[in-house]
Amino acid sequence: MPDVSPEPLLDAVLGHLRTSAIKAAVELDLFTAIAEGATRSAALAERTGAAERGVEILADYLTVMGFLEKSDGQYGLAASTAVFLDRRSPAFMGDIHRFLAAPEMLKLALADPAGFVRNGGSIGLANIAPSDPIWIDVARYMAPLAAPVAKATAAHLAELPPAPESILDIAAGHGLYGITCARQFPEARVTALDWDNVLTVARENAAAAGLGERFKTLGGSAFDVPFGGPYDLILMPNFLHHFDEAACIGLLRKARGALAPGGRIAIVEFVPEEDRVSPPRPAMFAYIMLATTPAGTAFPPSALRRMLAEAGFGPPELAPLLPTAQTLVMASPA
Amino acid sequence: MPDVSPEPLLDAVLGHLRTSAIKAAVELDLFTAIAEGATRSAALAERTGAAERGVEILADYLTVMGFLEKSDGQYGLAASTAVFLDRRSPAFMGDIHRFLAAPEMLKLALADPAGFVRNGGSIGLANIAPSDPIWIDVARYMAPLAAPVAKATAAHLAELPPAPESILDIAAGHGLYGITCARQFPEARVTALDWDNVLTVARENAAAAGLGERFKTLGGSAFDVPFGGPYDLILMPNFLHHFDEAACIGLLRKARGALAPGGRIAIVEFVPEEDRVSPPRPAMFAYIMLATTPAGTAFPPSALRRMLAEAGFGPPELAPLLPTAQTLVMASPA
Repeated sequence: MPDVSPEPLLDAVLGHLRTSAIKAAVELDLFTAIAEGATRSAALAERTGAAERGVEILADYLTVMGFLEKSDGQYGLAASTAVFLDRRSPAFMGDIHRFLAAPEMLKLALADPAGFVRNGGSIGLANIAPSDPIWIDVARYMAPLAAPVAKATAAHLAELPPAPESILDIAAGHGLYGITCARQFPEARVTALDWDNVLTVARENAAAAGLGERFKTLGGSAFDVPFGGPYDLILMPNFLHHFDEAACIGLLRKARGALAPGGRIAIVEFVPEEDRVSPPRPAMFAYIMLATTPAGTAFPPSALRRMLAEAGFGPPELAPLLPTAQTLVMASPA
Repeated sequence: MPDVSPEPLLDAVLGHLRTSAIKAAVELDLFTAIAEGATRSAALAERTGAAERGVEILADYLTVMGFLEKSDGQYGLAASTAVFLDRRSPAFMGDIHRFLAAPEMLKLALADPAGFVRNGGSIGLANIAPSDPIWIDVARYMAPLAAPVAKATAAHLAELPPAPESILDIAAGHGLYGITCARQFPEARVTALDWDNVLTVARENAAAAGLGERFKTLGGSAFDVPFGGPYDLILMPNFLHHFDEAACIGLLRKARGALAPGGRIAIVEFVPEEDRVSPPRPAMFAYIMLATTPAGTAFPPSALRRMLAEAGFGPPELAPLLPTAQTLVMASPA
């Protein structure tokens, strides 16, 4: 039985070593060092200030993992590594570990995994506590992962005239969804809603994008603060997955009440198939929510349709945001 | 560029979630529950005492990972899962997480990975501190992983007559290597050396194997306690990788002095190729040693030959212990 092996089990049990190695390599900026010519362990040690023995074993493991290539004692970057892990690359996203594998996140996932499974969600509010500073990390470090999703979202919305003039970006975080739409629709004004501590980052990004007076912020909880409006477009990117269906329906109803006639909501989510086990990334995302929120999940299409109908929306249109693993869900009031 | 994707990076950064899910599933005995017929989430919830929402999301993720199969809402075990993760299986090894992903191990790997890379090894003695209780976990929980390696070792030694009559098992742990050799060579007496706290487990296993008076123990550090002897066979399974070459040479020299004429040493190790990046399991093992010991590693053949020669042994014979990922290294005094 060649397909029976303990190797997949070992790989899974030792999964945390992959997290460990990526964290170490990004913190030491090992990938950039290699890209800049420090291709042997001695040069890498000098460049990173680490023991040669340490960087060699790390680089060897990163080679086993496929991030590096090794030939005659020289390391090189694999194709995806050059794009995403060389700090000089415009698509650099090495710092996503500062949120996705932050100490708080590691603790939530690893301290008592059977506990949150038994409980059907995190014990306590975990990541959705008011003004949790972890969302500043999201705003700061997840932008490179969100950028292609925001771009695909804006491109898709551009195919659906008329162009929106007023946009609300709910739980804006880094603000990239609203900012990218503002660039797509030059007449649009954007209001970014999030906790006050997080909006600092969105404001920086909006200023860098040159949005000037077209960008405003609204501080507070999306559940509590009045939305204002009416808006032609309400963006709700990567927000619903933190909550149970009842909370989502309440939020969607509130959004519907803030839409102008002919307006629409644009939700971005990880949307697995109805089997909830495919495709891999949207499906596994539910486990992250189980570990880090009291009642969040990855909603399949049927759940999104049910919640939107309950909140007074017509049937949604779902569009995959390729090449990313996320889905755009658009709906207008019924 | 279809081969350029952030997915491998996401997989690595989120590697700790694999550890998390396996820990949760084994602790809840989810795999055994499915094997015994609790194939739907409602039945799994009842059987494990966990929230249905929790077990469903966990089982879905385990399906994404390939440990389970899901069809029409029913879960089943993949072939390797049935062999290694159903607690009723003789090859069950689910509890390896109690050592490989124990809280101490997670902390060593994740608290400051750049730190141990910079340092070229763990800060402090980490896992090789005297009488560290983690080795009781090794003895208790790693036996199922060691059993096939010990069996392949004994089978290989059986092809090299004469049969040994006196055997020393250094850093015996669970004692499986010595015990398996004692069963292979019915005339042999075995002395198991390890910390006193660990030998309790080896004694239990030897008693269960019915070795009676043929099994003795020797408590203490392999570096300090006199070996006694002389022995026809000295076993040194999975021990050298914790130390630097100088320490290994000292230990090998001490072993050579305890061999009877015609005797041999049998070392079991993860032995990567000289490139140190293949095969995957022996190669990545060096990273575990970097995180959890001050100076340990996975030695390639050249290093083993060098250390053995330095300690007064002749050229070693290396034999892969298939189907496991380990290698048997045998040598006799030069």
